[in-house]
Amino acid sequence: MEELKNKVRSEGRCLGGGILKVDGIINHRIDAPLMAKCGQAFADFFKETNPTLILTAEISGIGPALMTASALGCPVLYARKKKPITMPDVVYSSSAPSRTKGEVTPLLASPEFLTSEERVLIIDDFLASGRTILGLVDLCRQAQAKVVGVGALVEKSFEEGRDLLSDVDVPIYSLAQITSLENGVEVAP
Amino acid sequence: MEELKNKVRSEGRCLGGGILKVDGIINHRIDAPLMAKCGQAFADFFKETNPTLILTAEISGIGPALMTASALGCPVLYARKKKPITMPDVVYSSSAPSRTKGEVTPLLASPEFLTSEERVLIIDDFLASGRTILGLVDLCRQAQAKVVGVGALVEKSFEEGRDLLSDVDVPIYSLAQITSLENGVEVAP
Repeated sequence: MEELKNKVRSEGRCLGGGILKVDGIINHRIDAPLMAKCGQAFADFFKETNPTLILTAEISGIGPALMTASALGCPVLYARKKKPITMPDVVYSSSAPSRTKGEVTPLLASPEFLTSEERVLIIDDFLASGRTILGLVDLCRQAQAKVVGVGALVEKSFEEGRDLLSDVDVPIYSLAQITSLENGVEVAP
Repeated sequence: MEELKNKVRSEGRCLGGGILKVDGIINHRIDAPLMAKCGQAFADFFKETNPTLILTAEISGIGPALMTASALGCPVLYARKKKPITMPDVVYSSSAPSRTKGEVTPLLASPEFLTSEERVLIIDDFLASGRTILGLVDLCRQAQAKVVGVGALVEKSFEEGRDLLSDVDVPIYSLAQITSLENGVEVAP
């Protein structure tokens, strides 16, 4: 998606250790008009998979997931890191490592909303190691919900994310692909 | 806003201690089509205040803030609770108590994005004690940004939020007002 690629090229910064700073468009400030276009792009690509629910991980996945859900007319469920008192005692639970926070992040979803009836499209901000998305797939397996696709705004294609997700056997679609962070931010054409 | 009021009436549950469970529409699963309408309602109400930035608090404020920003064509900035390594060392910092998590929540915003140039519309999911919104106002004061309005999806009008915010001296607009949680969820007509 040309506009996102251009933004990542012009505003993205390498912080070392494979970390890309894009907090002016995705992770702190959200470029809402651009995010709406990204949501539409995901909706166009995945609409024939007939998703009934968009699943993401808080926090930075909420933006692209909500815009995709809005374009498709379905709800979004964001896996929580910490159980608020509004959540039931028994929940589906998985986890994933967070590189930008240096900790393992729980992924919690309520059985009230993630059910075996759902056709789930997973949307997140990044596809890098693939472990957050695999954690979300694991929640779906626990709920016996069907995963129909995986979308990410930015894919670090030099990491092993796609390989890790190959067993999931669904279409994987990213809107911008980073080929290297060794010498500045290199975005695939 | 009739549709939100009806959803809160039909799906909201009292958990005691003044806590309203609406995690099927706002706090865990987001009703995206409804949230888009809520964002449009905020945009219609506040557009003449000419906001250049929507400010909210992660996590549950992101939904309504992003939909409002999308309708107004401006970016959204979500105050972070924890500093990721993508954030600069010096940030604006405030805090607010979280009732559903039983802890004090930091509110952090980067001076890269919250500047004295901005006309800030604060949008959050709840207006209850008003202390989260006051924390966001405090971030704007630190940045010398101008606050032009405050919007919340759900106002607990039996709490002191509006009084606490009276000094801010901007329009305050909520889309559904809870008048009591003593005997079920009572929503103002």
